[in-house]
Formats: sequence, structure tokens, C-alpha cells
Amino acid sequence: MIRYSASVASGGTEAMPYLFKGNVEAAVETCAKNGFDAVELHLRTPYDIDRDLIKEICERNNITVSTIGTGMAYTFDRLCLTSDDENIRRDAIERIKGHIDLASFFKCAVIIGSMRGRLPEKGDREKVLGYYRESLLTLADYAEKRNVVLLVEPVNRYECNFHNSSAEMKEYLATLGSDKLKILLDTYHMNIEEFGQNGMYDSIRECGEMLGHMHFADSNRKRPGAGHIDFAGILRTLNEIGYDKYVAFECLPWPDPETASAEGLKYIKSLEGGG
Amino acid sequence: MIRYSASVASGGTEAMPYLFKGNVEAAVETCAKNGFDAVELHLRTPYDIDRDLIKEICERNNITVSTIGTGMAYTFDRLCLTSDDENIRRDAIERIKGHIDLASFFKCAVIIGSMRGRLPEKGDREKVLGYYRESLLTLADYAEKRNVVLLVEPVNRYECNFHNSSAEMKEYLATLGSDKLKILLDTYHMNIEEFGQNGMYDSIRECGEMLGHMHFADSNRKRPGAGHIDFAGILRTLNEIGYDKYVAFECLPWPDPETASAEGLKYIKSLEGGG
Repeated sequence: MIRYSASVASGGTEAMPYLFKGNVEAAVETCAKNGFDAVELHLRTPYDIDRDLIKEICERNNITVSTIGTGMAYTFDRLCLTSDDENIRRDAIERIKGHIDLASFFKCAVIIGSMRGRLPEKGDREKVLGYYRESLLTLADYAEKRNVVLLVEPVNRYECNFHNSSAEMKEYLATLGSDKLKILLDTYHMNIEEFGQNGMYDSIRECGEMLGHMHFADSNRKRPGAGHIDFAGILRTLNEIGYDKYVAFECLPWPDPETASAEGLKYIKSLEGGG
Repeated sequence: MIRYSASVASGGTEAMPYLFKGNVEAAVETCAKNGFDAVELHLRTPYDIDRDLIKEICERNNITVSTIGTGMAYTFDRLCLTSDDENIRRDAIERIKGHIDLASFFKCAVIIGSMRGRLPEKGDREKVLGYYRESLLTLADYAEKRNVVLLVEPVNRYECNFHNSSAEMKEYLATLGSDKLKILLDTYHMNIEEFGQNGMYDSIRECGEMLGHMHFADSNRKRPGAGHIDFAGILRTLNEIGYDKYVAFECLPWPDPETASAEGLKYIKSLEGGG
């Protein structure tokens, strides 16, 4: 049974693909009312929210926290795991450790997407990949001790310049040997990066148990139904592999957060019924 | 009857989506041999090629020049029609005028894609849109006198920050009132930008006579067939509107130029047969 989550950010700019931005407390209540099973909290720091208050609101509204998104620490603070600057890498790791502690409190997972950073266009890419590997292993060790899953996300070529496809990410994570490192597949990025005429479905199948989370956004990053991604086929494939984790709507709040979240979920549930 | 063209550039980096790079003479012969009706020449300046020699090679190989691509003048020389610097705008216009002269020689069209430039993220976007309008009108006037069509291309949000979708471009060009300004639709960009579940087909239909040229690249910018774009549906829609102009393969030379061009064309022709 797939459970649906809605992206709720503590802040962010207009261009960021989060359904709700600011006023996390109110957004959690709206998401519960609109039929979501969970919220995905996008936070710049773990201290953006009052965790006890959010937990209480969740319990009162029968909704959970599925995931913690960390990308704002890259967008606003330039923290990433591939920085050439040792201090920035250390701060990035500390920031994510804080999110892991918060995830342990909510019994949810932590996303590592934009915070992966970028490899240098010129110069020693291998050295930087070494930093990245070391950072991920440190975080995996920290997460294992707290029983928290880390979801590493392949991101399209414009937003990141390595491990853009599901296949590359799967192959890479396998070399790290931690069962707390899982893949997050995002349909918007997949629509640009996957290979072959059945690439989106094949990638889901090939991930299998390694698939720890999904993001749904349509081809234009708006809510499912606003573009041409074949979500009926995606849902069929997820059911085929017995996927029973969360699918979070990480998409632009178009035309507004209320409509985008309600219509997006309604559209996906209509396809589920017909599947 | 759709005619097929292959992108041939006088240079360019690995990341650029041209099938052939460098040695234009040899590439024209290869494209003819592989069954293309035409080549799309991507040139940094109109003087990158010996026009008489290329014309002679084309005639000898029964192949034409469909289009001249101008994007390298933006990538390498930063020339664009939206620069805040008057001298840069003037140089951009002069460069494109040179391409229009060349197009007049080859009886082909000129593409304006990357050379559109970008609007400022902050500051006076209206002022810059004014520069853009003025530049396009100057070029349209020059093109009209030489009976050359200018193909203006909507480009995805990462490569340009205005007129990203077919609808926006169509609406904008209509305000300029020149029948020498037509739209170029590129399937790779459409896959990211069009709206609605039938967005790619609807956009082609809505352009109708305004559609002056097509670029084919698959969802991952590789050759048609390497991704999941529904080219059968695209071809059906093009035939439905009676499209009888060129379709140019502007895609990454993956795994190599020879294979990409030959397999890409073979794939599209197999769909045409089945359409």
C-alpha cells in the first residue's frame, strides 16, 4: 500500500518545488484535511520547527512525517558534501546529522539531494568524489546507529553534474555497502534522465528493494496531471515491485498550494482506482 | 512530406547536442550517405565554412542545407539580443545578419535559440524585453528583405528564463507581426515545458502554420529511440497539420555521430511506416 506525503517547507523561494512554504503548522493541518497520509518537511536547519508542536499536530490530525528534505541548506547556505573547503563539508555533515536526529524523533527518513553539490568542471574530480564518499560513509554510520534511512536522490543534469540517472546512483550506492542508504526516485528528474523507451519503469524495477522513497511531480514540475508523465504506468510498476513506502508530492504550488495538493492527490488516486 | 536534417557543427564542446562537430565537409557527405535530406549547420560565425565548397558538396550529394543554427555565438562569444550592453546587442544583431546573408545564399532558415539570452533575475525585465523586441524587429526586417525565415525557439527553463513554452512563444511572436518569424519546436525542451497530458501534441496543433521547423531529440537529449518521447504520436500530429518542412536531429552524438545519426533516422522512419 503506497502512502502519500505532501511537501511542506519552512521557507523557500517561488521557484522551489514545495507545495507549501512557511507556516508549517497550518500546512500540516491542511495536508491532513486534504487526505495525505504524511508530510515531507523541507527545512533549512533542524531548528526551523518546534518538533514537539509538530508531533502533537501530526498526532491530533492522524498524519505522520515521512521524510525530511535538506536542500535549502545548499540553496541558502551553500553547504554540500563535495565542497573543496573542508569547513563547508564539515558544516554540511553536521547539518545533516542534526536532520538525522530530528528524523529519529519523527521515525522518518532524511533526503540527500541538492546537498550532494557538484563536481568541479575542470580539475580533480576523483579527489572530490573521494570527499563525497567519505561524507556519505560518515553519515551512513551516524544514521545506522539511529536507525534512520538516508535517501540519496539522482537529480537532473542542470541541477547536478554527477549520478543523474537511477542506474548510476544504484551502482554507486551499492559500492558503499550500507543498508541505510536507499535511492529516492523523482519522476520530474527521471523524465529528463532515464534511458530507453521504458526507462522510467525499468529504473523502478531495477531499484527494487533499494527504492526507499518516491517524489511525484509532472514533466513541467507542476502537480501530477499538469504534464504528460504516465503516472498510471508508474503506479502499476510500483505495485508490481510491492512498493509500500511513501510517495511525496514535491512539485510547484501551481496555481496555489491548496489546489495543487488537493488536485494532485485526487488525480493520482483516480489512476490508482483504475489500475 | 517531412524532410529530415542532421545537425552538423563547425565546432563545439562535448556537451553540445550536435550530431557532428568539426569537419563539416566530411559530415555533409556522411549525412547524405545515411539518408538525410538536409543538414542543419551550427556555426559560430558565417565564415566558419567555405560556402561555395559546402554548396558544391551538397549538390554533388543531393542534400540541402535546411537551417543555420547560431547558438555557438552565445556559448563562446556571449552575444545575445537581451544584453544590457548596447555594443553586445549590436554585435549579436550583426552576427545574425551575417547568418541571414548566408541563409539567403543557401535558401534556408536561421535559428534564434540561445542567442535570445536571458532576462535579469532582478531589476528591470521590461527594459530588457524592450531591447529584445527591438532586436527581433530589426532582424525580421532584414530577413524579410532577403526572403529568409527566422525560427525562434522556446528553450527549457534551465537554459533560458523567458518564453520557455510553445504557447508563450506563439503569443509573443504574434505581437511582432512579421510573417518571417516562425516557431521552432524542440521535442527535448517540449518534454520539460509543455502543459497538460497531451501538451506536446496540442502545442504542435496550436502552432499550425506558425510552426517553421522541428528539432528531434529524445527525453535525455540522445537520439530518438534512446528515451521515452512518443515520436509516433509527434509524427502523427505533424502529419495531421500537414507539416511539410524540415525536422532536424539536434541531439547528443551518443554513442558516436555515425551511430546516432543512422539509428536515429532509422528509428523515426520505422515509426513513419507504421503511422
